[in-house]
Amino acid sequence: MTYCVGLLLDAGMVCLSDTRTNAGLDNIATYRKMFHFEEPGERVITIMTAGSLSVTQTTIARLREAVEDEDASPETSIMKAPTMLKVADIVGAMLAQVRREVDEKLNAMNQGATASMIVAGQRARAMRLFLIYPEGNFIEATEDTPFLQIGEHKYGKPILDRVVRRGTSLADAQKAVLLSMDSTLRSNLSVGMPLDLCVMEKDACRVTQKRRIEAGDEQFRAMSEAWSRALRDRFTQIAI
Amino acid sequence: MTYCVGLLLDAGMVCLSDTRTNAGLDNIATYRKMFHFEEPGERVITIMTAGSLSVTQTTIARLREAVEDEDASPETSIMKAPTMLKVADIVGAMLAQVRREVDEKLNAMNQGATASMIVAGQRARAMRLFLIYPEGNFIEATEDTPFLQIGEHKYGKPILDRVVRRGTSLADAQKAVLLSMDSTLRSNLSVGMPLDLCVMEKDACRVTQKRRIEAGDEQFRAMSEAWSRALRDRFTQIAI
Repeated sequence: MTYCVGLLLDAGMVCLSDTRTNAGLDNIATYRKMFHFEEPGERVITIMTAGSLSVTQTTIARLREAVEDEDASPETSIMKAPTMLKVADIVGAMLAQVRREVDEKLNAMNQGATASMIVAGQRARAMRLFLIYPEGNFIEATEDTPFLQIGEHKYGKPILDRVVRRGTSLADAQKAVLLSMDSTLRSNLSVGMPLDLCVMEKDACRVTQKRRIEAGDEQFRAMSEAWSRALRDRFTQIAI
Repeated sequence: MTYCVGLLLDAGMVCLSDTRTNAGLDNIATYRKMFHFEEPGERVITIMTAGSLSVTQTTIARLREAVEDEDASPETSIMKAPTMLKVADIVGAMLAQVRREVDEKLNAMNQGATASMIVAGQRARAMRLFLIYPEGNFIEATEDTPFLQIGEHKYGKPILDRVVRRGTSLADAQKAVLLSMDSTLRSNLSVGMPLDLCVMEKDACRVTQKRRIEAGDEQFRAMSEAWSRALRDRFTQIAI
């Protein structure tokens, strides 16, 4: 499985993904699930993926091909699309098409493949955050719901529900997604380190911070332990 | 949906269930999902249910019938079964049979019904806690894994993973299951108040505490708010 989360805040956007993929519990590997497309100052797009690796890899590869194609047009290339809405549309159409193709192959074996994606970015004035469903349709983060998740989203949702608002600072937002991921890592083996974290500050139109957090990362371990300790301390003090 | 959790501790057992059932989002009702069978001092059994209401109600009704039957035997009545293992066996067989019957009826409409249960209790010396699968097979809580959950279990798992050990006191255990439920209630509409909480102290062989927590319960609200406040406070203080 996978856990990816994207936040759309007044100050910018924050994305976090894990890297574990598995075909059965005995076949575990590390694959990047966060992809950036940038034309600094003009547009920035981060895509995170969950689901069948054969679907997500092919979708990302074809999106790249379309960007590099010499006939690339605003209809086919996410780097030429006039708005983030059009970007979501292109990604959704590509995902749906690849999923159908892979599904047809797998149908012969009575299996199926599915995948979903988070698309976060800024083109011109508006930062926007979309969740693309396997069928290609999508929803968008709003003022009321400033975060979107794909994959194993339930373990890490309570902390986000409690602390993330549109006005949350980028520093607090990074802490929130990391603690959300930490809860997921602890409760579900199919989500695993290393992690990819990125920040896109508002109006920079580029990835302003990018960090890979490896399994032994001292800072992440310290934060995770401090949080566990804080939870246990507070737990002891609360009255029922 | 549903959320039920059972804890097996050195000091006794703690069970908590919600009461929301729904057939679609527009058809919501309140049904008890926690059932007690007691012969104080001799044996105590608490059963919690998740899944299709038609399956769980029929299963519980038939288990009661079997207890009240004048030909009740250790093979058919959970109140005559010699061990908790045999109780789990009887419940599992009954659940599987009812599920098959209901499934057959629903197959005609291309629908299916499923359900699972938690069985907690003490007969003679050993307190035991089982999770019964829809097929009738079951697993048991152990020293390493002192809690079992059914229904919407993911939201409330991180807090249990962090604080529940076999040596946890009954007071802390009640707090842990209530906070686990609180996280679930906040993040998932299909789980709802009121709640049923019970404690079976070790060797009492009866339900030593039973409490229904209604939607407006002042104590629960205060605990939930204190916990939210504590999380937010600590969140602010933790460094990344």
